[in-house]
Amino acid sequence: MAAEISAGKLRNLMTLADENGRLKMMAIDQRGSLNEALGKVLGREVSFDEVAEFKQIVTEHLSPYATAVLTDPIYGYARSVQNIPGHTGLLLACESTGYTTDESKKGRKTSLIEGWTVEKARRAGANAVKLLLYYHPDAAPEVVQHQKEVCARVGRDCAANDVPFLLELVAYPLSEPKSDSAEFARAKPDLVARSAREFSDPRYQVDILKLEFPADLKYTKEYRTGIFDGKEREAVYSLEDVRGFCEKVNDSAGRPWVILSAGVDIKEFLVSVDLACEAGASGFLCGRAIWKEAIPLYTDPEEMVGFLDSEGAINFLKCNAAAEAAVPLWEHESLSDLSLANDTPDWHRVY
Amino acid sequence: MAAEISAGKLRNLMTLADENGRLKMMAIDQRGSLNEALGKVLGREVSFDEVAEFKQIVTEHLSPYATAVLTDPIYGYARSVQNIPGHTGLLLACESTGYTTDESKKGRKTSLIEGWTVEKARRAGANAVKLLLYYHPDAAPEVVQHQKEVCARVGRDCAANDVPFLLELVAYPLSEPKSDSAEFARAKPDLVARSAREFSDPRYQVDILKLEFPADLKYTKEYRTGIFDGKEREAVYSLEDVRGFCEKVNDSAGRPWVILSAGVDIKEFLVSVDLACEAGASGFLCGRAIWKEAIPLYTDPEEMVGFLDSEGAINFLKCNAAAEAAVPLWEHESLSDLSLANDTPDWHRVY
Repeated sequence: MAAEISAGKLRNLMTLADENGRLKMMAIDQRGSLNEALGKVLGREVSFDEVAEFKQIVTEHLSPYATAVLTDPIYGYARSVQNIPGHTGLLLACESTGYTTDESKKGRKTSLIEGWTVEKARRAGANAVKLLLYYHPDAAPEVVQHQKEVCARVGRDCAANDVPFLLELVAYPLSEPKSDSAEFARAKPDLVARSAREFSDPRYQVDILKLEFPADLKYTKEYRTGIFDGKEREAVYSLEDVRGFCEKVNDSAGRPWVILSAGVDIKEFLVSVDLACEAGASGFLCGRAIWKEAIPLYTDPEEMVGFLDSEGAINFLKCNAAAEAAVPLWEHESLSDLSLANDTPDWHRVY
Repeated sequence: MAAEISAGKLRNLMTLADENGRLKMMAIDQRGSLNEALGKVLGREVSFDEVAEFKQIVTEHLSPYATAVLTDPIYGYARSVQNIPGHTGLLLACESTGYTTDESKKGRKTSLIEGWTVEKARRAGANAVKLLLYYHPDAAPEVVQHQKEVCARVGRDCAANDVPFLLELVAYPLSEPKSDSAEFARAKPDLVARSAREFSDPRYQVDILKLEFPADLKYTKEYRTGIFDGKEREAVYSLEDVRGFCEKVNDSAGRPWVILSAGVDIKEFLVSVDLACEAGASGFLCGRAIWKEAIPLYTDPEEMVGFLDSEGAINFLKCNAAAEAAVPLWEHESLSDLSLANDTPDWHRVY
């Protein structure tokens, strides 16, 4: 089916991908979690300048391996923009870090960065705007409604500025006891697929979905013995089941999607990139799996740079190699046989 | 001297240059001259679709060699955007093709493309806006004033959209008899330097100047014997003089500048790139010198593509090699020791 796309969405989507349409993107937009992690390393509260510096160093040393870099407009952009190569795409986050909890405790609410807008992101040269939405379809109705509205609002603002909208969906335990549990592992496949389906609805105007891996590999029969982190767990499914979950996510996603790393170790992330790409993902948008080992080295700049230029770079190159099996953006059903909307001699007038 | 720059200007300037800050850019935004040339080849008036197709083919085959591509929003953008690699910068022209002549015949006036705006260019993903201004400082005062106003207007619009402004200045004979004459060759060095100085004034908010070579090499003692086009001419200056003219242009330009090809042959253009870069230019923005031999081949698509992939590509690579001697954008006085304007923890609020 032939698809039509607006000029800004098309041109900017192209800036995010490699020449074949595969997305090999780095995230360095973490705020809350990074502040906390650096604080632990320093043994005191971390300053604005320290967080900005950490991001700048990671960006400088790892951006050259990325087709696009996601950073944030608070600690990231101003101090790192000169370290993102001009021929690497740029995504900017628009959500406030963290979430607020509903009175009923049944759900997490997202808010947008105060004083920042999609229009500013576009003006500052962003090729896409990213929104992280914590989402559980069974949260309190008021929470679900709020999250849908935030998403629709960013979708409208992105459309008005003709800039691609990348939506990151992160599920969380509600009635389930905690993230690292057999119960939540069991719930994950369905949560990821349902959320992907919901936000593929055209009313949200999402261009790319950034999704969690739809299973916890640590709870698979094959990996449950502690291969990734030394901790033994029960088996809740097999890798063959997981392949099915990935396919279901791909069927549920009406938009091209990339896989996120959610802070898992590189070995585990590489398995998830393989499985996701096999099922139809268009690549990855990965932060901590690639660079998190730089955090404890922050107090020793030489060590930190040494890690980034060796292991960090190798982590990235492994992800890039895995993503060679990804489905090019332009082969996704929603973008195949693409033409520009209003492609007539009057395009420049009617655009 | 440390310089400050706004976010959109900085990020987008970076997208135009190679990783070292050198500009190796292709122009395929010709309209009037290209319509005419293709019409001659076809022996009839050329259609919109044919011009758009010619541009699309050139863009597809030569963009991969460019750090950035300049096209136009009428024939170029809509049909070519998918052929400009995402990691190649994009410039869009904003002036109507050609010019109108003043009643007094003393000067050329530029107008902007009707129905097109800087805001649209930015929304469509342009990394810079280009204005071609025919300019003669001794034209009728009313013409000079008009041209200055057009330029200031585009400068304001670019600043409002925080997108780089590339100004192309082309001199023309006024009292001088014609372009290819000893008189005009004699006038050129001064014309180019005076115009460069005028439009470096901060009130025009120009980021990059696209300048003519400040001499006619065919009228130099060394090249006057017809080396470039078989036609013998008188000598009006020497190459050593020309070196001085280039230095004067560099001193007059308060902004980084690139050299344009104005349709000269590739051999002559390569000499001008060498001399311009030696004097301080940051690279080139070149169209016809690279691809004009594709025009007569338009009726034979296979021949045309054959030329573009062999000689055309080699022309480009020769220009790129010459531009390795260019002064990186970031070493230009106006951009050295660069920092982002308002680089504080509040940047995202105040931007």
